[in-house]
Amino acid sequence: MRDFFYPKSVAVIGVSPRENNLARQIVRNLVEFDFQGIYYLVGPKGGVQFGRRIYRSVVDIPDRIDLAVILTPAATVPAIMEELGEKGVKRAIIETAGFTEKGEDGAAIAAEVIRVAKKNDIRFIGPNCIGVINRHNGLAVPFTYMKNVYRKGGVTIISQSGGVGISYLNELASESIGLNCFASVGNKMNVDENDLLEHFIEEENTEIICMYLEAISDGKRLMDIARRSKKPILLHKSNTGELGKRIAASHTASLSGDDDITDAALKQCGIARFYEPEQLVNYLKALPLPSIKGNRLGVISRSGGHAVIAADECEQQGFSLAPFDEQFIKEIESNFRASVIKLSNPLDLGDLFDMEVYDNIITRTLKEPNVDGVVFLHTYLSQTEGDASRQLINGVMHKAKEIGKPLTVYVATDHSEIAALKHDLEFPVFTDVEDAIRSIAMVRDFRERESMVETPPTIEMELDHERARAIIDSCKEKDRDPLLDEALEIFEAYGLPTLPSGYAQTEDEAVELAEKHGYPVVLKIIAPEVSHKSDLGGVQINLKSERGVRKAWNEMYDSILRSVPNAHIEGMMVQPMAKGGAEMILGGKKDRLFGPALMVGIGGVYVEVFRNVSIRVVPFSRDEACQMVDDLVISPILRGVRGQTPYDVNAFVDCIMRASRLMLDFPEILEFDANPIRVRPDGKGCVALDARIVLERT
Amino acid sequence: MRDFFYPKSVAVIGVSPRENNLARQIVRNLVEFDFQGIYYLVGPKGGVQFGRRIYRSVVDIPDRIDLAVILTPAATVPAIMEELGEKGVKRAIIETAGFTEKGEDGAAIAAEVIRVAKKNDIRFIGPNCIGVINRHNGLAVPFTYMKNVYRKGGVTIISQSGGVGISYLNELASESIGLNCFASVGNKMNVDENDLLEHFIEEENTEIICMYLEAISDGKRLMDIARRSKKPILLHKSNTGELGKRIAASHTASLSGDDDITDAALKQCGIARFYEPEQLVNYLKALPLPSIKGNRLGVISRSGGHAVIAADECEQQGFSLAPFDEQFIKEIESNFRASVIKLSNPLDLGDLFDMEVYDNIITRTLKEPNVDGVVFLHTYLSQTEGDASRQLINGVMHKAKEIGKPLTVYVATDHSEIAALKHDLEFPVFTDVEDAIRSIAMVRDFRERESMVETPPTIEMELDHERARAIIDSCKEKDRDPLLDEALEIFEAYGLPTLPSGYAQTEDEAVELAEKHGYPVVLKIIAPEVSHKSDLGGVQINLKSERGVRKAWNEMYDSILRSVPNAHIEGMMVQPMAKGGAEMILGGKKDRLFGPALMVGIGGVYVEVFRNVSIRVVPFSRDEACQMVDDLVISPILRGVRGQTPYDVNAFVDCIMRASRLMLDFPEILEFDANPIRVRPDGKGCVALDARIVLERT
Repeated sequence: MRDFFYPKSVAVIGVSPRENNLARQIVRNLVEFDFQGIYYLVGPKGGVQFGRRIYRSVVDIPDRIDLAVILTPAATVPAIMEELGEKGVKRAIIETAGFTEKGEDGAAIAAEVIRVAKKNDIRFIGPNCIGVINRHNGLAVPFTYMKNVYRKGGVTIISQSGGVGISYLNELASESIGLNCFASVGNKMNVDENDLLEHFIEEENTEIICMYLEAISDGKRLMDIARRSKKPILLHKSNTGELGKRIAASHTASLSGDDDITDAALKQCGIARFYEPEQLVNYLKALPLPSIKGNRLGVISRSGGHAVIAADECEQQGFSLAPFDEQFIKEIESNFRASVIKLSNPLDLGDLFDMEVYDNIITRTLKEPNVDGVVFLHTYLSQTEGDASRQLINGVMHKAKEIGKPLTVYVATDHSEIAALKHDLEFPVFTDVEDAIRSIAMVRDFRERESMVETPPTIEMELDHERARAIIDSCKEKDRDPLLDEALEIFEAYGLPTLPSGYAQTEDEAVELAEKHGYPVVLKIIAPEVSHKSDLGGVQINLKSERGVRKAWNEMYDSILRSVPNAHIEGMMVQPMAKGGAEMILGGKKDRLFGPALMVGIGGVYVEVFRNVSIRVVPFSRDEACQMVDDLVISPILRGVRGQTPYDVNAFVDCIMRASRLMLDFPEILEFDANPIRVRPDGKGCVALDARIVLERT
Repeated sequence: MRDFFYPKSVAVIGVSPRENNLARQIVRNLVEFDFQGIYYLVGPKGGVQFGRRIYRSVVDIPDRIDLAVILTPAATVPAIMEELGEKGVKRAIIETAGFTEKGEDGAAIAAEVIRVAKKNDIRFIGPNCIGVINRHNGLAVPFTYMKNVYRKGGVTIISQSGGVGISYLNELASESIGLNCFASVGNKMNVDENDLLEHFIEEENTEIICMYLEAISDGKRLMDIARRSKKPILLHKSNTGELGKRIAASHTASLSGDDDITDAALKQCGIARFYEPEQLVNYLKALPLPSIKGNRLGVISRSGGHAVIAADECEQQGFSLAPFDEQFIKEIESNFRASVIKLSNPLDLGDLFDMEVYDNIITRTLKEPNVDGVVFLHTYLSQTEGDASRQLINGVMHKAKEIGKPLTVYVATDHSEIAALKHDLEFPVFTDVEDAIRSIAMVRDFRERESMVETPPTIEMELDHERARAIIDSCKEKDRDPLLDEALEIFEAYGLPTLPSGYAQTEDEAVELAEKHGYPVVLKIIAPEVSHKSDLGGVQINLKSERGVRKAWNEMYDSILRSVPNAHIEGMMVQPMAKGGAEMILGGKKDRLFGPALMVGIGGVYVEVFRNVSIRVVPFSRDEACQMVDDLVISPILRGVRGQTPYDVNAFVDCIMRASRLMLDFPEILEFDANPIRVRPDGKGCVALDARIVLERT
């Protein structure tokens, strides 16, 4: 990939002296960014432009070409790629649009481009992209008008959309955040985001990678690369359409849409997801700061109002405002003219107007052992305090770096001053009080999550794989999903406890089973056509006598046949009533991008109401499974709040691990639900009361 | 209040030729903003400044003075106020700091200022404020350096903090949103935010009022004024510290902190609360647009990436992207060079580069009957498309206004162009795709909530007030809160159903009562010292026999005396076991600012976990009580989802109304809980299983 960003020679193909020729803009950008290599102009009609010869073909160039940038009509691209092959050019950027997005004709050309590229061993970015920029050597080949207003720095941008990529570049420019490389990947016909990401996690000038994607090419590879990365990766994954959720068959599928699984996967591999440019900017500003070691902030403000707003936001973000040490307060106090204001944290600078004293106070606060980070809220008049403010901010930012604690600075002044300030300072500043605090929290949370990123472990346990295999194979033969009794048996085979239930084909058999289990019992219909049993009257609970069982049997038959006249009722499951325990749901879903994923949540009647679930892509460790449970709102109850008996979380985590092994072992399982699964009081285990497994049909 | 903003003559008191004299800055600001009245300079030492005489006292001025602006040391202010009295000045703005915030000395001066003002019938703003601005007549008396960069307009700002007020002014300037008046209220010793608000809801130039408050002076008056206002009121209420919550005695108090009640009150009176400058700006940009009538947006974009992001945000904000009419699509299609892109909603303008055609398409989309509002995402090059873009945006914004549908415009271009554009356009633009959509949603939600604002009704119902009065009076005499049996009796008196429970003083009496009610029963301890009974083993449920009751009686006695050795156990409540129904909580709390408030939520074990509650300030209508229930996450279950039997919401709403009457009738009730209160299946009513009432001690 390096050759795309550090070519010694570039051919810009598609240049003509015609008005509105877009490829000419590429050449202008190479001039504007002061490209440190050689470039040649190529266009079928030849001619002269910018005082240079336009070659009719790349083969005519009397020099080696490392990179070709192509902006010619789609139909001409295959032939040009052949010429690249002839010339021995191994890297191309195809900016032309109108391939696969243009219907059949376009698709045929696209296929031809791929064929020719493969034959000639050419790797290419695009088509339908705006190309790349390398701020360090001045390579800048977008066909849009650009100005080189970017500071040199460590941020690399990979964007699927040219428009969005450019708006990120605008953000960098306006905040004076340094750029390393930019790449617009377009249709990703050859090089995709993973190819570039894999390069940039190792590239020497990259410090932070920021991506915009509408589609992820290969989820597993993305996770793998991200896990290896020592550099922060920020991703805006758009196109979160929830349509998939609405047509889901199981609870699990309805509660874990594609985007929910993407979200889980990104967390598991340590990618920070963002949704808005504002969040991106917060990350880019705070990530280079020293990491915060605790949650105690010191807030120093020139305006009392901003101090109040800061205190609110600290509480929101889980920071505490540790009271300053008394000795420390006394030292500060000596700086104030009169003791107008009670000094505390937030520290209101009140009638103190001396920048040198500010410097002392901020530095001193940074050094306090019970302060983990400092926020300085600086309101100033540009006319009288501009220079002094610049000096102050640069000074304290340097000291914070030395001391090893994060310091963020909020400035309130007129807008032209803010623009000038951002341009002049070595460090980013904030123009929202909230962002100055939130950004520290965002990075804290990111680092915390990052520390949990793990190499996926192998899950080993005892289980009866063959028994499960046999049932699933027999279902596949019959081209149907497992019935309730079969699904429960598969669970049992994998060590997921179920109730000692039985399968009755007649009313009498049901009574017999009920007597065997002991009353009260539950009856559940078994019919391949009936998935959501309870909605259709296919479940009756708390049956206390033979009479009750017989009555229920007949009612349920009637009820099901009324709603699903063609149902083949194969019998009924007879289960003893489960008592006690917390009703949870445990489910699995095979994701198109990331493979099998597991989900846990509050089960029973609340499942669809609270929609509070926790998802992980398989495989994961037992620690991660514990975290899954602890991420749930209900976790304090499971763990035992206010002297209540805790539930058997250990057994539940065991079930999660066994379920994830089930998903790994049977790639044909598309979805499964254990809902509800009752987690009993500590030491008493779990039991799945109901089961549903959906298989992939071939 | 008008006299504070439209004085014909102003005296600036505190001016001296000394360097760093702050009052001089006030005079500079009057010049900068081109004040249309006469002003005089006053300072004890006299002298000359700005070619004008400095009068030694206001009484020396040979003219009538409508408004005095005071910036002199605190200690001198009472004497100056006397002089104002002598001169007949009726309005003053005291910008001086160092009164109540300065301890005892300051408080004494403050009291003196209040006395003198009262004696002389002077109304004053401040102290400790930066004064007022009226953009329409150039009155601008802050002592900070200001530039008149504000467009004339309809936004009025009332701020408790000078610093925050100025940052709002900066936002207005940078977004080119028009300013009417600004007032910084400081310590609110005489004029408070309500006095100003009451003025501005009627003032002719005010269209939108925006406030920043750290403390609300009078909650009930605020609600009353807001209810009368025909103009949108936006409020940033900071200082949301949650300390109060943590030391709460009842569940209700722990779930409804001061800020939660403030939040409810603001909603009830139609005030839009915001927390960040970004939200303020969104409101200010979208409120002047025509209101949206439905939820169908049309999105038109020059960049495919931005269109995808817009579609995500539409879904987030509950908007649908209605497919465009086929005839309409055909008409648009004729404008495109080639059919490169499939036209739909969002509409990707692709290779179409004609601003006139854009104008046609946007106008046509606005006119579509199945489109309620339009978002235009405009990426452009300032060098080549700047002028045309300005013309386009102004044109379509005007047309949208005529058509009566909201149109928001997002622009992506370089930052200097954005600044210029904001300055030149008559309408605000957005620089975040999300904000362009979110702002429409914010105003939609605000208008929806506003339409529900009601005049508080009188709650009439049959109840036994005297019985409740007698119990409460007897408790007050004993200087203690009602015991469980008394609290339940108060509920009964107000028509809040409870179980047919009985009060047993001995083990034998308990057995007798249990036999009377029928097994199973519940025993609950009654002891004034024991509030959270169940945490201490003071409740046992599901006792099925005489033996069970006796065993429980003795265990509970032991358990309570072990944890609370000094407890005076007065006996036990014996209740039949309640069956079925949804466990809810119904509670009340008397708020310091807004008076009694009612709360409902999910009860029982989930109460502290989900913390999903709904709060209203009393009194409110039955409709509002229904809305309270429907605001809960659990509402679909109560109303009956997926064929389940609905619960008796009607009876629950009845309980809410009765409870609010109880709070109104007994101002001495500080807090009460009915937790749990079981809402039974439809038609079967509600029943409160437990009760706690906390009285105000005198």
